[in-house]
Amino acid sequence: MSNQELPIVSCDDAEPCASAVMREPLTAEQATELAKVFKAIGEPVRLRLLSLIASHAGGEACVCDLTDAFELSGPTISHHLKVLREAGIVEGDRRGTWIYYRVRPETLRLLSDSLAPATDAVVTA
Amino acid sequence: MSNQELPIVSCDDAEPCASAVMREPLTAEQATELAKVFKAIGEPVRLRLLSLIASHAGGEACVCDLTDAFELSGPTISHHLKVLREAGIVEGDRRGTWIYYRVRPETLRLLSDSLAPATDAVVTA
Repeated sequence: MSNQELPIVSCDDAEPCASAVMREPLTAEQATELAKVFKAIGEPVRLRLLSLIASHAGGEACVCDLTDAFELSGPTISHHLKVLREAGIVEGDRRGTWIYYRVRPETLRLLSDSLAPATDAVVTA
Repeated sequence: MSNQELPIVSCDDAEPCASAVMREPLTAEQATELAKVFKAIGEPVRLRLLSLIASHAGGEACVCDLTDAFELSGPTISHHLKVLREAGIVEGDRRGTWIYYRVRPETLRLLSDSLAPATDAVVTA
């Protein structure tokens, strides 16, 4: 799923970004799409992976940088990374032996804005 | 759980609020606490309930205002409201027959800030 499919924050020149979650009731369809992304980070290992990737030097990390932080198997780490990738929260590309992951800031900003009280909404026109 | 137990965003006069998730790796304990709250909103009915409460006239809603939006039983709605309340996302108080719910903006702001790219962090000193 790409962030373009999460119609929860609207921004244009006429109207600053506003939090749709806080401003008006989400439709069932909007809630289903958005809940998927929150569910993806509603798991401690995935949230730590996100944090490790986001804060890694250079803004990206390979699986080789991530596994040491956990007492988990490589396949388990890979499964959690896949969930984050499918939710549009991180993206990765293969270079040589490794896949390098980085966060998708547009998705994180969208999630962040969706929860911000209306007065906090960040203008990113 | 109260928001005071979520040590994921630090703000004081010397240092503006910054997103700990994006800035440095979360500890396992921080991730466990924060993931619980994201998991609570990682479910479509609960996300719609949050949105309905937040956007309701006057900033609060009773169960009587919420059930019509769903084809779900009263006890099911009450269960989801309990999960949101236990996560510190909403709070409620009984007046007469009904419990009235409102969002806890401090928790929402904390979640929002935890995901904001560092440059977006909202200063709420």
